[in-house]
Amino acid sequence: MKQKKIEWKNFDQLTSYQKLKALGHKVCLKDAMAGEPGATRVAKYQVPMGDHMTYSYAAKEVDEEILNLLQEVADESKLTEKFAALYNGEMVNTGEKRLALHHLTRGQLGKDVIADGINKREFYVSQQKKAAEFAEEIHSGEIVNEKGEKFTTVVQIGIGGSDLGPRALYMSLENWARTLKGDGSGLKMQARFISNVDPDDAAAVLSQIDVEKTIFILVSKSGTTLETLTNEAFVKEALEEAGLDPSRHMVVVTSETSPLAGHPDYMASFYMDDYIGGRYSSTSAVGGVVLSLAFGPEVFQQILDGAAEEDLLAKNENIRENPAMLDALVGVYERNILGYNATAILPYSQALSRFPAHLQQLDMESNGKSVNRFGEAVDYKTGPVIFGEPGTNGQHSFYQLLHQGTDIVPLQFVGFRNNQMNRDVEIQGSSSQQKLNANVAAQIMAFACGKDDDDKNSFFAGGRPSSIIVGEQLTPEALGVLLAHFENKVMFQGFAWNLNSFDQEGVQLGKVLAKKVLAGETDGALEAYSQLLGIY
Amino acid sequence: MKQKKIEWKNFDQLTSYQKLKALGHKVCLKDAMAGEPGATRVAKYQVPMGDHMTYSYAAKEVDEEILNLLQEVADESKLTEKFAALYNGEMVNTGEKRLALHHLTRGQLGKDVIADGINKREFYVSQQKKAAEFAEEIHSGEIVNEKGEKFTTVVQIGIGGSDLGPRALYMSLENWARTLKGDGSGLKMQARFISNVDPDDAAAVLSQIDVEKTIFILVSKSGTTLETLTNEAFVKEALEEAGLDPSRHMVVVTSETSPLAGHPDYMASFYMDDYIGGRYSSTSAVGGVVLSLAFGPEVFQQILDGAAEEDLLAKNENIRENPAMLDALVGVYERNILGYNATAILPYSQALSRFPAHLQQLDMESNGKSVNRFGEAVDYKTGPVIFGEPGTNGQHSFYQLLHQGTDIVPLQFVGFRNNQMNRDVEIQGSSSQQKLNANVAAQIMAFACGKDDDDKNSFFAGGRPSSIIVGEQLTPEALGVLLAHFENKVMFQGFAWNLNSFDQEGVQLGKVLAKKVLAGETDGALEAYSQLLGIY
Repeated sequence: MKQKKIEWKNFDQLTSYQKLKALGHKVCLKDAMAGEPGATRVAKYQVPMGDHMTYSYAAKEVDEEILNLLQEVADESKLTEKFAALYNGEMVNTGEKRLALHHLTRGQLGKDVIADGINKREFYVSQQKKAAEFAEEIHSGEIVNEKGEKFTTVVQIGIGGSDLGPRALYMSLENWARTLKGDGSGLKMQARFISNVDPDDAAAVLSQIDVEKTIFILVSKSGTTLETLTNEAFVKEALEEAGLDPSRHMVVVTSETSPLAGHPDYMASFYMDDYIGGRYSSTSAVGGVVLSLAFGPEVFQQILDGAAEEDLLAKNENIRENPAMLDALVGVYERNILGYNATAILPYSQALSRFPAHLQQLDMESNGKSVNRFGEAVDYKTGPVIFGEPGTNGQHSFYQLLHQGTDIVPLQFVGFRNNQMNRDVEIQGSSSQQKLNANVAAQIMAFACGKDDDDKNSFFAGGRPSSIIVGEQLTPEALGVLLAHFENKVMFQGFAWNLNSFDQEGVQLGKVLAKKVLAGETDGALEAYSQLLGIY
Repeated sequence: MKQKKIEWKNFDQLTSYQKLKALGHKVCLKDAMAGEPGATRVAKYQVPMGDHMTYSYAAKEVDEEILNLLQEVADESKLTEKFAALYNGEMVNTGEKRLALHHLTRGQLGKDVIADGINKREFYVSQQKKAAEFAEEIHSGEIVNEKGEKFTTVVQIGIGGSDLGPRALYMSLENWARTLKGDGSGLKMQARFISNVDPDDAAAVLSQIDVEKTIFILVSKSGTTLETLTNEAFVKEALEEAGLDPSRHMVVVTSETSPLAGHPDYMASFYMDDYIGGRYSSTSAVGGVVLSLAFGPEVFQQILDGAAEEDLLAKNENIRENPAMLDALVGVYERNILGYNATAILPYSQALSRFPAHLQQLDMESNGKSVNRFGEAVDYKTGPVIFGEPGTNGQHSFYQLLHQGTDIVPLQFVGFRNNQMNRDVEIQGSSSQQKLNANVAAQIMAFACGKDDDDKNSFFAGGRPSSIIVGEQLTPEALGVLLAHFENKVMFQGFAWNLNSFDQEGVQLGKVLAKKVLAGETDGALEAYSQLLGIY
């Protein structure tokens, strides 16, 4: 069977884009969300995300006509075909000439992908199995420290994608795991993370753990990341100072071709490859080893299952049945037609406090680009600024600007019907969980509809769009759905904008210049700054 | 002596604004920062911030002509006179009809301010003294728990300004204090923070501390903040469950007119007043009690001294000698003339990891407004979106967009010549601290000058402006300087935009609607969302 070759077109070359542009700003959210029609809209404009979650987009500035045009964009831009090309192993990372295979870490979406002579799905599964077995040996006490004691703590040493995603996932489930079993054994090992080359980062973590009972995971795909190697040396020195043998406390996650692979300095090596970018690597060994150690392999598997569930939805051609693609296209409409420049991520769950930081990397590093996949400058806006904090905290902070500032910032809420720790208190007739959720419901409406007031200081214009992802509880599976939703959203936006979402050339120049500074090869302003900062 | 009445004008009514607008985008940063003239520029475009810090603005898109025009804005808009009016006790918070007196918590900048029949400076100092005495009684063991044991932990219960500022300051100095004395006694008490109404937030903190040895500080100016009262009840329940007497474990920071003031439920009451807004309250009792307990009153005093030092600089009429005012006006030029929509805060210090979250509130809640101080709609952009993460972490995350995205985002770097914990490692011929600072120097130049490349994927346009605040070390005094710098910057921007930076009407509507939800008084879309979120 011969497949038609996909045409990659710039967004502004699409007929559907021209139609959208001609339509411009159409929906008055204030009117659309008012009264009983508003309730009908909430009931209608939602999509199930797997069994337990819902993507609600009623408070977005869309209607049937706009949704139909967004469907035209999806069709004309062949978004699901491009997704299929990706998971079937076409070389979508044109800059680095690589495949992008992170979906295979959690399922087989299409045909077998054979690369470098091996079946990649089998390869990723084999690494998960290896991580699971290693975790079980640690948990059971088969592998112990020099004194024969069990390991209690795991520290991940990595930066960027080797840090933000795994850290956000760990924090999302840390307290859930703690309370999973009455005896506290739900959290198998406490996890910590060292990322920054600032020596105070490693020093602070080391001052708060018992290194004797700690496993360190060094994570670097290339095996050459300066920050990570520096922090490894820092940790090795601390282990040696404590009279310990570093090779009995360290494992490595790297590519098979890296200088660290299989090195005797590590008690075990786990592998990833060049086909999984850092920011997409949470479901590979990069997240798998630390999360299997912290929570047990079965919990990591549940995260994978959740992600796989969302990946399947992402195959749907109908945007009304594909929440990630719908979210992506509404975002493109907001960015390119409505002219909004940022997106706020607002999870009403304290456990998701670092999830916005992960999405910041995922989104801004993937789509913060000015050239298309062929290296040609594009003539339209691409990825927005992404920021966010958990609610209700944010309400007492930057929401002032979101409500009454001079720019409109689209909002992405996340909420859960139940809390994680099953501990609550009733005050003034409602539980904390009810108060939390009453606030998110109230905010959506306040942003959408605003409030008239003769006192202009108390006037709210409304018309500030939001969507919300609602789940039953933040479980490992729900977390997997969330993770994959945003990965796939970013992927679809990259396709729509005709970008290569899988490289990151923008981080190279700074690295090159930093090396020059360290080598003393500076002049002009770079030398002046180096002196100001006390390097020379 | 009769003072001339200050005229409050909208920004676009200024002659100097019209001149700036006519000038438009003038400086090519790439050219200005290249070669030896670049080095000269770095040497010239810096201002001392007290004894040990420097504000460097060489990599901003300014030149002598623009700086002179910004000086004209300062003069025409009477920025320092407005500052003087503020610290001399004029009613600058026009919306709430209040004074704004946070500067008095750290010094007497002008004449005595008598309000509500008392000298306000004396009042704030008296509260600091009370907090210092209380902290000393706790540290010395004069006040102990039910079992006669010393308290070891302090938990602040507050939200918004009662949380973000004090938390950021605590985290900035936690490790510095730990290593201050060889025996670890530099950190007097470990501090934790409960803010979110999400019950998992309080549950998580409670699961990680020994409540028997913990002092809880309830912080709410009005004494009616729903989140805070809910979390108080949560904590009280936990204390009672542990067989403890809550009134022996709780103190309160509130206003003298609040229902909580002097209540027997608390072992001590510390007071603030209506003239200090939440986001400006870190140097009042809101920050003072927790920081005096954690670090000792003398450390809190050093923070105040640093802030006072910057406040004095803020009186300078010459923008070239007033870093906060200069920073403010360059930001206004970037926002209103150059059209940039966001600002990234990038501290190259892991200890400042939550400082951007504090600045997010400070800036976005103060100046994210669409009406002037008289309640009239303004016709120009006001406060930008503020976000940020520490470097070098951010380099491996969202810097891709900052370097090569389609929008230009001005950058605010912060760096220190020395680390806090005096523990470092040398790898490949340089220390971690040198690597950290080499990276920030490199980034400034990479953003400013970019890189030509025939491969457009590796092309960097440059022209991305930044400034940097450089200090010797992140000490309490340096932290005070930083804190006040941004407070004063935001204040000057608010003056320039003719806003009331001291109220926050934009947070009210959501509160009102949330109460309706909890009272079951909903219909339409609000009811539909409440059901979706499982409240009913």
